[in-house]
Amino acid sequence: MNPTHLTGPVLVLGSGLLGASIGLGLRAHGIDVVLSDPSPSAQAVAVDIGAGRALRIAEDLEPELVVVAAPPDVSASVVAHALETYACAVVVDIASIKVAIATELAAIVGAKSELLTRYVGTHPMAGRERSGPVAARSELFNSMPWVLCASDQSSHHAVKVAHSLAIDLGAVVFRFTPEEHDAAVALVSHLPQVMSSLVASRLQETPAHALSLAGNGLRDVTRIAASDPTLWVQILGANAPRLLEILHGVQTDLDRLITTLSAPTAPGARLDLAQLMAEGNAGQSRIPGKHGGPATSYSWLTVLVDDKPGQIAKLLTEIGDIGVNVEDLRLDHSAGVAVGMVELSVLPSKRTALVEDLTDRGWKVVL
Amino acid sequence: MNPTHLTGPVLVLGSGLLGASIGLGLRAHGIDVVLSDPSPSAQAVAVDIGAGRALRIAEDLEPELVVVAAPPDVSASVVAHALETYACAVVVDIASIKVAIATELAAIVGAKSELLTRYVGTHPMAGRERSGPVAARSELFNSMPWVLCASDQSSHHAVKVAHSLAIDLGAVVFRFTPEEHDAAVALVSHLPQVMSSLVASRLQETPAHALSLAGNGLRDVTRIAASDPTLWVQILGANAPRLLEILHGVQTDLDRLITTLSAPTAPGARLDLAQLMAEGNAGQSRIPGKHGGPATSYSWLTVLVDDKPGQIAKLLTEIGDIGVNVEDLRLDHSAGVAVGMVELSVLPSKRTALVEDLTDRGWKVVL
Repeated sequence: MNPTHLTGPVLVLGSGLLGASIGLGLRAHGIDVVLSDPSPSAQAVAVDIGAGRALRIAEDLEPELVVVAAPPDVSASVVAHALETYACAVVVDIASIKVAIATELAAIVGAKSELLTRYVGTHPMAGRERSGPVAARSELFNSMPWVLCASDQSSHHAVKVAHSLAIDLGAVVFRFTPEEHDAAVALVSHLPQVMSSLVASRLQETPAHALSLAGNGLRDVTRIAASDPTLWVQILGANAPRLLEILHGVQTDLDRLITTLSAPTAPGARLDLAQLMAEGNAGQSRIPGKHGGPATSYSWLTVLVDDKPGQIAKLLTEIGDIGVNVEDLRLDHSAGVAVGMVELSVLPSKRTALVEDLTDRGWKVVL
Repeated sequence: MNPTHLTGPVLVLGSGLLGASIGLGLRAHGIDVVLSDPSPSAQAVAVDIGAGRALRIAEDLEPELVVVAAPPDVSASVVAHALETYACAVVVDIASIKVAIATELAAIVGAKSELLTRYVGTHPMAGRERSGPVAARSELFNSMPWVLCASDQSSHHAVKVAHSLAIDLGAVVFRFTPEEHDAAVALVSHLPQVMSSLVASRLQETPAHALSLAGNGLRDVTRIAASDPTLWVQILGANAPRLLEILHGVQTDLDRLITTLSAPTAPGARLDLAQLMAEGNAGQSRIPGKHGGPATSYSWLTVLVDDKPGQIAKLLTEIGDIGVNVEDLRLDHSAGVAVGMVELSVLPSKRTALVEDLTDRGWKVVL
């Protein structure tokens, strides 16, 4: 059991996927975790899976930290109540938008603004397609970003305790202001979400035979369109001002594109299309690569494998034997047949030798 | 060497990635392939890599098939010239748009419409990020869709020869009308391309620290924004009418979303957002799964692995031992640390047992 920075007890308000996962992660370090959820059944499940214990009858709990793991909509009021109830505790929330909660919280506490010295807004950027305590895992935050959004009022102690929570759960800590955070997630999370949904929405009425030509391009762009509407309604609503600013830019570009495509042979039309594509190239190239490394630091190759158990394992075992580390890997989909294409990214310096070695070993390297 | 349906000789006009790959694939079957490219250097490279031979001095070539592997812009004129020059040959093009080429071709041949009995428009849906003959591979089309777009004039013989080309190269043949094809690719290929570019375009001006929070959602949505502008200008321009229709729908939805986000607390705003997300869910769920199977036929789990050589191989080897086939696989990116999350999809019936077996074997199954 590793030494922890938190000493506990930690009170977790809300025992959904994130709350229960935080409980499991802290329990794995032996920290005393008390769970509370408005839904008795959700709380019971979280307790059953070992995410923490229920509050004892007449127990006078003095938590070191209160983690508000409630839906974005109610986070501010739950935080305010916790700050009132536990006079010595640091209180953090983990909602994925921060400005709206800070504003609502300030309005609730009003004149008692000294309460806010013990509050830090945070955002662990984890979470999976599934929800609820049953999906909880103690490693959910391992190696994932956890953003701390301290306010001017947040005390050093409060920030230190919030920081301890993140690193005790194995997360990578980032420091943003609430405004920086909301602007960043509007761009890297909320924009792709709505655009993916807009693309997927077009597929509702289309004949199935058209979809039979779907490739990885469409699959990649629409993957997150499967996300949960209930949660996203709250996120998009709360971050509307930041997202709107970005969407106005998209709207301008889209209108420009539609105008261009309406007269594709007009002078300058091709230049406009080339410009749109080039701007996409430029923006895409700025996305950091795996482990925050430069986006351009890996090169790709594709290997053909039979789609049966053990084939990909055999390939990767041989690549391991060759001594090359696979930086990223994905399967290429193909309609109608059972052959897989494995796309691998490796350090550019390793690529040529790897292609030769794999070819010598009888693998079909497509690119 | 497998028996082939084509007998040859096959003349390939254009020795870029696709033309050279077609040459390599047919040469692998021992078919006589003659290569011609307006760029002597590109032709020389293609010949050097064994994609075919150059036309002999004073050779009177009578090809069974002429494959026009030229850019979309010039495909129609090259097809027309080939139909005139080789009176007995079937001629196919492989451009990724079909209506514009058919229209332009009909205009060029004019009264000599009997020429068109020997023409079939086709679209092999392969090709990689890299281009040029150096990137060519004989397996490029293996297991990928190859769409045949016969016109009313196309003879049975011409269609049969085009079909032979596709299956000799290991492709999966689809039959569409040119209109069906262009409508389908506008939706499954051209729409995601422009939307991905529009999202990536927003990243040009953003501060780097915001991009440090980029996750798989943004990476997936913007991956194809790295595509080649030169080619896409021709594709988007040629398929403008079909793409426009779809983009008008996107424009309406985007305008609706912007209106809603401009007054996020207005009555009905939340319903509008929920509707947008739900429509995305509905459309995304219609995309066929791997091998054309139903989209819903696999369930996912995520396993934590150390990011060092052999770890993923070890995991997949053990999954093979357990006897479960991995249907799809991808690595989860994480900023700043060297731990990988491997997302696996398997048949739902296998999932529970697999999670238990892997956990017993000491793997950390996150979800």
